[in-house]
Amino acid sequence: MDYIVSRSILVSLLLLLVSPYVSAHIPHLGRLRRPFQNKPQKLGMSDELATFYYKQPLDHFNYQPQSDVTFDQRYVIDFKYWKGVNPSTPIFAFFGAEENLDDDIPSIGLPLNFASRYKAMLVYLEHRFYGKSIPFGSLKKAMENATIRGYLSSAQALADYAQVLLHVKKMFAAETSPIIVIGGSYGGMLASWFRLKYPHIALGALASSAPILYFDNITPQDGYYSVVSKSFRETSETCYEIIRRSWAEIDRIAEEKAQGLSILSKRFKTCGKLNRSSELKDYLDSVLTEAAQYNFPSANPVDAICAAIDGEAKKKSSDLIGQVFAGVVAYMGERSCYDVSDYDHDSTDQYSWQVCSEMVMPIGRSGKGDSMFPTAQFDLNSFKNDCKAWYGVSPKPHWITTFYGGHDLKLVLHRFASNIIFSNGLKDPYSSGGVLHNISQTIVAITTAKGAHCVDIQNAEVDDPDWLKMQRKTEMDIIDGWISKYHADLLLFKKSVGTN
Amino acid sequence: MDYIVSRSILVSLLLLLVSPYVSAHIPHLGRLRRPFQNKPQKLGMSDELATFYYKQPLDHFNYQPQSDVTFDQRYVIDFKYWKGVNPSTPIFAFFGAEENLDDDIPSIGLPLNFASRYKAMLVYLEHRFYGKSIPFGSLKKAMENATIRGYLSSAQALADYAQVLLHVKKMFAAETSPIIVIGGSYGGMLASWFRLKYPHIALGALASSAPILYFDNITPQDGYYSVVSKSFRETSETCYEIIRRSWAEIDRIAEEKAQGLSILSKRFKTCGKLNRSSELKDYLDSVLTEAAQYNFPSANPVDAICAAIDGEAKKKSSDLIGQVFAGVVAYMGERSCYDVSDYDHDSTDQYSWQVCSEMVMPIGRSGKGDSMFPTAQFDLNSFKNDCKAWYGVSPKPHWITTFYGGHDLKLVLHRFASNIIFSNGLKDPYSSGGVLHNISQTIVAITTAKGAHCVDIQNAEVDDPDWLKMQRKTEMDIIDGWISKYHADLLLFKKSVGTN
Repeated sequence: MDYIVSRSILVSLLLLLVSPYVSAHIPHLGRLRRPFQNKPQKLGMSDELATFYYKQPLDHFNYQPQSDVTFDQRYVIDFKYWKGVNPSTPIFAFFGAEENLDDDIPSIGLPLNFASRYKAMLVYLEHRFYGKSIPFGSLKKAMENATIRGYLSSAQALADYAQVLLHVKKMFAAETSPIIVIGGSYGGMLASWFRLKYPHIALGALASSAPILYFDNITPQDGYYSVVSKSFRETSETCYEIIRRSWAEIDRIAEEKAQGLSILSKRFKTCGKLNRSSELKDYLDSVLTEAAQYNFPSANPVDAICAAIDGEAKKKSSDLIGQVFAGVVAYMGERSCYDVSDYDHDSTDQYSWQVCSEMVMPIGRSGKGDSMFPTAQFDLNSFKNDCKAWYGVSPKPHWITTFYGGHDLKLVLHRFASNIIFSNGLKDPYSSGGVLHNISQTIVAITTAKGAHCVDIQNAEVDDPDWLKMQRKTEMDIIDGWISKYHADLLLFKKSVGTN
Repeated sequence: MDYIVSRSILVSLLLLLVSPYVSAHIPHLGRLRRPFQNKPQKLGMSDELATFYYKQPLDHFNYQPQSDVTFDQRYVIDFKYWKGVNPSTPIFAFFGAEENLDDDIPSIGLPLNFASRYKAMLVYLEHRFYGKSIPFGSLKKAMENATIRGYLSSAQALADYAQVLLHVKKMFAAETSPIIVIGGSYGGMLASWFRLKYPHIALGALASSAPILYFDNITPQDGYYSVVSKSFRETSETCYEIIRRSWAEIDRIAEEKAQGLSILSKRFKTCGKLNRSSELKDYLDSVLTEAAQYNFPSANPVDAICAAIDGEAKKKSSDLIGQVFAGVVAYMGERSCYDVSDYDHDSTDQYSWQVCSEMVMPIGRSGKGDSMFPTAQFDLNSFKNDCKAWYGVSPKPHWITTFYGGHDLKLVLHRFASNIIFSNGLKDPYSSGGVLHNISQTIVAITTAKGAHCVDIQNAEVDDPDWLKMQRKTEMDIIDGWISKYHADLLLFKKSVGTN
């Protein structure tokens, strides 16, 4: 068993965690974390990267005296393949999402492949309130102030991206250069929404693992967890069964024995004393869903967990608890203790605020069908109450579909819009809220049976399977078609093409 | 000469004036006023109209504790032709713009023709900060408070319309009913932008006389005035020549004679004493441009003005001043005096704020070519300074094109979007900033050589010319095609069609 998640990767994962455990009563909401990556540096990365800051209005939509307040938004341009000013060369833009851009740049490889193909520049844009793009320079101050954190929203972020991209075009005399925007997960939603809202700035979008349909009641609540269960079951029926039975066993031990929680603490080597069994169950839930979401071919954490569980089950002396714990060790690595609060968040977490304001994704556990998880329906009312307790305002669960749409997507977009790729790996629990079928000839879905969350936009690895190589090639070829058509249109429609 | 503008029409015109005369140094900005109408009541109008109010968030885009503040937005539904709940019946929505809905409903006739054709309901939506849809109930309070007036913007207004329309659909079990949005002038811009930004709510848009290209440098500054000059010249060469020469004559009298301004006051029967000749020239400018803009076939004010001017010129004793004054009398009617401040605005005017924040339309007078107006370039810097003096913030002249686009419209929209009619009368000075050529098979331009501002959406008159009847029929037939296609798609793509 050589699958071990290193401590450094874990730390970066923790930094990227975004789902709010608003309270113990709220079911697990899933995570829109961006994928992690073993290799921390791209070869030669630092040489051609230049960092810029753009003075961005804190508020694009209201115009009040206080709206003159700006913040410095970071963007980074990779000039590695760029061959100088040429208005017929496209620009590729990677949309940062709920994390520091420094964590994306070393791991998100596909955009740089595009840049290489066209001798183009690649612009990485950091999302407001993340990384080094935080208003007033202090995350704590920005997130604890109810007025300031109110400016953290997707619509504001898209307007930021619009401003920066127009600025970059101007700066490099690239007014006629088509821009292709690329993003993953929440960043993939942003990319697809940007193409829909700003077609005059982006020619097309690659939205990797973007669950734009996980809002309102479009996707069944248990879509996320049913994919996780399926993924484990397909890996190993015994492993799946052990996990499925373990929750009740944990409760039984916790409830039936006087020292039940101590026993569980000891068996799971928890760093602190367990106060209730839900702390342990939430932790296991996080480990299992995270493994399923990031089940990349290079690491295959679901295989690793199930191999450990099944191996343990073959031992004479083993019991359910020991078997599940073996899975945890396989995923987390050998440690002196396991911290069940590893996945916790608090109200200063930026994405927790986004989830508690507009990004309300009703993910629940129905307990139905093949679910290996205990039942925990998403309860909008208690969710609202908990968010209100944290932030003083109730979430707006219908805003995303009001502003961006989502219901009857094919009906709406079949004769409207163009040039969006929705890519999803079907092993990714978030694919349940993704666009999995073509909408039109130019709004297309690319799915891979074995793919995980955002795997296509990750750095290529030498041992990548053929299906993944093929997926990336298909995506690049489709986008090449958009660019060719654009240049043909440019000749036809545009009177003055500047320096072109 | 039976063309006389009645006092009551004039009052309503004055109420609708929207271009800010920020200062004497700012050239005339043109007006996005909505068309006036002689007949104050539609037959049977009041019987089937129902007024509703929707609790609308003051701020859709930021989510702060103060964002829970709402205002009551008025909308009016005309049930005259509606035959009850039927999810296959379309809904027609008229987008209010910079005026009180009470002024639109009696005069905007085309939407009701649509309702009649489909036995559909017609929803009139009032724009925030106008009519009875004013936050905190007091226009003065709303407009004088720099924070509150900041919420008056097109993006907020579109989000208001989105919320109300979704609410109406829900209220009448009309989830699958396609919505067609209709607007004129600024309201036409809103209609076209709404189709672009909210295709999931509006199936299509009829944008009448919407100068969406009069932003940034897309349209030449003097587009507006060159149409006015052309319109007068085509009506009468002598009339045009008299007007063209009158400005210098006014200046000559004002400057060369000690009592020059008094002489001008007397000759033009001004109600008050003229302080400078620009007051008179701005007034004449407003009369002439307004007449050109609203040169409806039923009234033909340009003809009326030129007939009076030419008639006066035939008199032996007449001079340039007397000739131009005869034109004023023809347009305004016989009065004891003429108030040159009739067209003035102050900073509490809502559309002045919109012009000074985002709706920056650089309309100038180049003095070139066939212009009959004195030169007055649009000077962005002094415009900015004047707006800053009025409102404490500088306009954002690039925001409209950043958020909605506009540059290279055909290039951008040829393979994106659908179902928009841009209708323009080429006698309308604002047609210079309109979309005059088809963009694609479903984003089409309809122009009429003789049409004025928004004439197509006005009430039909018995003596309407054939070209106008034909224009309305063409528009209705195009929209009929959208609705048919939608129903075919609905059968194909939508799994559950509810009660349909």
